[in-house]
Amino acid sequence: MTGIPFAREADLPGMRTILEHLRATGTERLNQLIDWLRIPSISSHPENQPDMRSGAAWCADFLREAGLDGVTIHPTAGHPIVTASWRRAPDAPTLLIYGHYDVQPVDPLALWEAGPFDPVVRDDRIFARGSADDKGQILMHMQAVAATLAVTGNLPINVVFLIEGEEEIGSPNLPGFLVANRELLRADLAVVSDTCQWAEGIPAITAGLRGLAALEIEVSGPGRDLHSGSFGGAVANPLEALARMLATLKDERGVIRVPGYLDDVRPPTPVERARVVEIPFEESAFFNAIDLESGAGEAGYSTLERLWYRPTIEINGLWGGYMGPGSKTVLPARAHAKLSMRLVPDQTPERALERVMAHLRAVTPPGVRLELFPKPGGGLPWRLDPELPAVQAARRALSEAFGREPLIIGEGATIPVVADFERLLAIKTLLVGFSLPDACPHAPNENLHLPSFHVGTESLVRFFQQLSLG
Amino acid sequence: MTGIPFAREADLPGMRTILEHLRATGTERLNQLIDWLRIPSISSHPENQPDMRSGAAWCADFLREAGLDGVTIHPTAGHPIVTASWRRAPDAPTLLIYGHYDVQPVDPLALWEAGPFDPVVRDDRIFARGSADDKGQILMHMQAVAATLAVTGNLPINVVFLIEGEEEIGSPNLPGFLVANRELLRADLAVVSDTCQWAEGIPAITAGLRGLAALEIEVSGPGRDLHSGSFGGAVANPLEALARMLATLKDERGVIRVPGYLDDVRPPTPVERARVVEIPFEESAFFNAIDLESGAGEAGYSTLERLWYRPTIEINGLWGGYMGPGSKTVLPARAHAKLSMRLVPDQTPERALERVMAHLRAVTPPGVRLELFPKPGGGLPWRLDPELPAVQAARRALSEAFGREPLIIGEGATIPVVADFERLLAIKTLLVGFSLPDACPHAPNENLHLPSFHVGTESLVRFFQQLSLG
Repeated sequence: MTGIPFAREADLPGMRTILEHLRATGTERLNQLIDWLRIPSISSHPENQPDMRSGAAWCADFLREAGLDGVTIHPTAGHPIVTASWRRAPDAPTLLIYGHYDVQPVDPLALWEAGPFDPVVRDDRIFARGSADDKGQILMHMQAVAATLAVTGNLPINVVFLIEGEEEIGSPNLPGFLVANRELLRADLAVVSDTCQWAEGIPAITAGLRGLAALEIEVSGPGRDLHSGSFGGAVANPLEALARMLATLKDERGVIRVPGYLDDVRPPTPVERARVVEIPFEESAFFNAIDLESGAGEAGYSTLERLWYRPTIEINGLWGGYMGPGSKTVLPARAHAKLSMRLVPDQTPERALERVMAHLRAVTPPGVRLELFPKPGGGLPWRLDPELPAVQAARRALSEAFGREPLIIGEGATIPVVADFERLLAIKTLLVGFSLPDACPHAPNENLHLPSFHVGTESLVRFFQQLSLG
Repeated sequence: MTGIPFAREADLPGMRTILEHLRATGTERLNQLIDWLRIPSISSHPENQPDMRSGAAWCADFLREAGLDGVTIHPTAGHPIVTASWRRAPDAPTLLIYGHYDVQPVDPLALWEAGPFDPVVRDDRIFARGSADDKGQILMHMQAVAATLAVTGNLPINVVFLIEGEEEIGSPNLPGFLVANRELLRADLAVVSDTCQWAEGIPAITAGLRGLAALEIEVSGPGRDLHSGSFGGAVANPLEALARMLATLKDERGVIRVPGYLDDVRPPTPVERARVVEIPFEESAFFNAIDLESGAGEAGYSTLERLWYRPTIEINGLWGGYMGPGSKTVLPARAHAKLSMRLVPDQTPERALERVMAHLRAVTPPGVRLELFPKPGGGLPWRLDPELPAVQAARRALSEAFGREPLIIGEGATIPVVADFERLLAIKTLLVGFSLPDACPHAPNENLHLPSFHVGTESLVRFFQQLSLG
């Protein structure tokens, strides 16, 4: 198996023995991951409450055994938060390591090649829900800390772990927890591994994240489902009304037409646009990997600009009427949709939701009633501070482990806590991710590339050392 | 209970004893209906195959016990067809009595107040799937024939029953059966009771039916569900594409914008438009009964004109993406819709489907693939021949039983066989229905008004007699 850590000539003292330890414990560390992945910790499903508790306990047990101090499972109004720290290096900087043990739902279940909670290893990858997003990635940090402690009895820096269980549902209880635990979480820098490498063997530092807002829509018409022959043509059809409303969100060029929505969007800087052009992006490979010949989207922007610098309004789910086999000629009483919006600076979830809701109310056709259910929480968009000294430490660590310089990339997804660290704790964040672009997070057959798992863990051991050098 | 038959001064000879028999057997006849309604004969569900056979057998057993000749269950490529006849009145006309023992699916099941196949009687109504559409109504004919035979040992006319099991799925095997069994089905007139009275106590003869065509749509995009953050904005969303496509079917005034679709529509004649105006139609009561304040539809037409003289394109079902509890920020791989069209003369299912499919292909946005699954079969629209002598016989029978003249009304729904009787057997049809407008066919809590069940059965006994008078 490639990716297993190996030492270099120029390594810092002690590094060689830590890397040898990582190499010797590869199978054991993979089994730890498998063990955690077996727990179906789906935060959005009420029936998985016990699994959420098991998922948190697994992680607390690991950190306690690794030698961390003050390991605590904090109850919240939702799912528990795990913290642990090691603060025995008084002159060294402190790193806040954030991750999450909750995972996305698994449907459509039929498209999984194996059970989403029965991890299988195939072609150098482990397939399971949560393998990439985010158990596999936070576990690299946990194992990097554990290995360093096991070999040296010390860490070169101070660390505090913050591992939550509500990332996939918008972290509703995390902001309150951050504010209430400022002292416990005190740190000079946060690091989050919940993003991707650029490609196999090409490391990346993520310089931007989109924010998130979500909304559920219900359109109702008659008090009951009607016979489409006896009533069709004389009664507004909620599904038709909803389709018409959704069709007004964008024009034919893919430009969002919700009044005011684009007013808050800060255009990419010349530096940012130039950086995008320099990325070795294989457009056709990107789309072929998802069985498409080409992309689609807002006119006037390239694929990477659409993903990194432009906001979206996406229909995540839409349903109503008869969805079973055969036909049923019904005029349905209700229609439903789930929308989510990816936001870019300087949008906020509150303003974006307000504008979309006002628009939907304005375009509701006669004869139906509209009800809107905005989701609380959401996430602010975020951009990396390019002056951050830790960026240099990460560049060096990744270069040493991967044997090549990392790319500075953007990311279209959302990690709400990153903006919250800055806003609520005044802590800047570094995003370094190790899953591959075809890891299928939020989709069937989610996977983690095992060589990347191992080289990622090595990168983190090296990163801790580099940070200690200032 | 009101509606139980009673004799009148001017009744034909023998009528009094038949009506007394109906009155004496009211409970027994209701129990027969309950017995049949317990069989979940849903023609569109493969898992109900055995119930389809039971439903057909129940009906054959009844007709055999009633004294009909040649009772036969004919296998077809789909569900069986039951026929039976009584042709012992050589000089009298022959009536082809058509009905169906199959029923619609039952979902949304949660909205039923009792099980759809556990019939309950409440407030003078019996609630069960199939009570109005059509077991309850064809059973009135079966019981009218049985009672006449039981009391008089004879019928005043010849009859042939034709009871099929595929009406709710578009009768795909019936046209072939008609053509292959012309001699068996030879008759002077067909009668169908699968429509409504105008209101409680107000009988109606239905002078028009809309036709039916149906289509299933699949729009597909990426090969798997994608993370809406990592891909949103750069990949076409199949749900959004489908919503946009469906929104082009009509304009904002409710006028169908599918090129050519309205070209085949014959406008209502001045007589037809005048007849609509004369109908005592309480617009607000009609919409209040379905919990609406008002209707909606094509500009320039009244509610009854929209229902009787204008075609529709209706979305019966629409689905895709995440439909469960909570949220899942997915960009779905596929989107689906079920459409049905109600057609008016001189549209045909084939031409209507062709035009809608051509339009959908033309408006498919880039980045998604469209697949269309037109349903075979469908139904031609139909208008009553106003010169038909049997109309007078029905007028008299209904007037005597109900104590008031029937209205001549239209109907927005479809009974495909009616056009087929004319086209394939050269037999004209009379439509006389007895369910109430709020019978909820195709919807939860389908019901049959029991006084109407009884007065309907009386009407049919009287109709047979009136027909025999020429």
